[in-house]
Amino acid sequence: MTDTHVTKRPLTLLGLGGMGTALARAWLAAGHPVTVWNRTAAKAGALAPHGARVAADPAAAVAANGLVVLCLLDDASIAAVLDGVDLTGKDLVNLTTGTPAEGRARARWAEERGARFVDAGIMGTPTMIDTPGSGAYVFYSGSRALFEAHREVLEVPAAARFVGADPGHAALHDVALLSAMTGLFAGISHAYALIEGEDIAPGDLSPLLSEWLGTMGFFVGNAAERLTSRDFTTGVVSNLAMQVAASGTLLRTAADQGVSTELISPYLDLMRERLEADPARHGAEDTVGAITLLRRGAA
Amino acid sequence: MTDTHVTKRPLTLLGLGGMGTALARAWLAAGHPVTVWNRTAAKAGALAPHGARVAADPAAAVAANGLVVLCLLDDASIAAVLDGVDLTGKDLVNLTTGTPAEGRARARWAEERGARFVDAGIMGTPTMIDTPGSGAYVFYSGSRALFEAHREVLEVPAAARFVGADPGHAALHDVALLSAMTGLFAGISHAYALIEGEDIAPGDLSPLLSEWLGTMGFFVGNAAERLTSRDFTTGVVSNLAMQVAASGTLLRTAADQGVSTELISPYLDLMRERLEADPARHGAEDTVGAITLLRRGAA
Repeated sequence: MTDTHVTKRPLTLLGLGGMGTALARAWLAAGHPVTVWNRTAAKAGALAPHGARVAADPAAAVAANGLVVLCLLDDASIAAVLDGVDLTGKDLVNLTTGTPAEGRARARWAEERGARFVDAGIMGTPTMIDTPGSGAYVFYSGSRALFEAHREVLEVPAAARFVGADPGHAALHDVALLSAMTGLFAGISHAYALIEGEDIAPGDLSPLLSEWLGTMGFFVGNAAERLTSRDFTTGVVSNLAMQVAASGTLLRTAADQGVSTELISPYLDLMRERLEADPARHGAEDTVGAITLLRRGAA
Repeated sequence: MTDTHVTKRPLTLLGLGGMGTALARAWLAAGHPVTVWNRTAAKAGALAPHGARVAADPAAAVAANGLVVLCLLDDASIAAVLDGVDLTGKDLVNLTTGTPAEGRARARWAEERGARFVDAGIMGTPTMIDTPGSGAYVFYSGSRALFEAHREVLEVPAAARFVGADPGHAALHDVALLSAMTGLFAGISHAYALIEGEDIAPGDLSPLLSEWLGTMGFFVGNAAERLTSRDFTTGVVSNLAMQVAASGTLLRTAADQGVSTELISPYLDLMRERLEADPARHGAEDTVGAITLLRRGAA
């Protein structure tokens, strides 16, 4: 029931790495005219049979459409590729991976050149793009007017979530979630390393781990509440003194099993540091209080 | 509809810290005659109004019943408390926190004294005991005959899961899950630290974090499959080369936000170590392959 008689809005896409190519294919499949450019021309040419219009250079690609999507190698590539290109009146959507600071600086850079700008952080991999049920989505922040004007187009490859006018906030959300995932993967990795060589199949530990991590996911909401209220002591289920006391069993077990403690000891050390700073006060607290130490090196 | 005319099976409980007290209360509430002993007698006396029989010393407590539950401070306390006590024919259930090696050694120690033995690892806190829906449960391993003989009693305070004849495996499962939780908490802590001072409420990040970590929980099953098949390259969604390339954004963002990288850098370093050992071979692998490095220091 595709309505092929409605003209879909055109866009330009610069950068055809794994992610850029997946995005281009999603827009083309949905019927949007897509003008592409890539430093290695072969990747752009490969999309021509799918309907892409291949521009000879970045200036021609940008001139072709009002909506210009950037999916380049890194932030520095943006300035290099668009050096000298007229961006006046353009709507730039930056899907290039970067930091919040890069997103903010790039927003100023775009504004100085007469363009509207949103930065974006893609929560997913190329294979998850345009795959219903994959869970992929994109954070956007910066110009809400730009986002609202192009929301329908932007939502074609993956769901879109606007997280505010600060152009650094899309990347900040992206990095916050990826950082949390890093910890999750680290913990899971350590758990599997512990049972290697034992008569316990990874497939038998797997459902127990999934269930337990699901239950312990309560920490997300618990931390949000305590960081907002700054109340680290009311209704504590497992206090810092108990957690620190239990950490010895985790470390000794790892040593007995021949497993490095490198992935778990930093958090155990952080809890201990928080406790020892004031045992009488912090011992009865939730471990959420240890989060406040992570900025101890900041000015 | 409590059937008070059926005689519930009696048991002895040694050790009335927070967990021991919660267990005793659960059994007493369910109508089981419970004989208790604790080094600090006041804690035992506090349970008398709830129906507990208070023994004068460990020998008297052990003599009172065939089923003897231990919930002491640590493994060394067990030998100290039961020194010289006749354990012949007793069924010992050890709920004292310990390592797998301690569980195995304590099983041999019990066997030498003519007792049957199961070691246990409690997945939950005292406040979760006897609370329906809390998700608390207990791993048991060692004598299956003992476990089956007392399963009904053991399941009163929390659900029971028998994980094999190796008396070290209850503690190993316990530690594996707690270690995975440690990583999860570390990742979540870092994520919240990143947004501190920004115009992003923890309560707004919370549902995004929960959803994302739920989606990324696929790593549990993914890792189990790959560790079993030893196939780290087929059907990879996000390969090691991509993950390592992305790690710079995580580290630079943390630095920009004034947040220590101590909780995320060990796993990022581990992935880089795996990649650099053989970039051509490992670059296309799933990050699960990095788990094999955690035993690199083992003999």
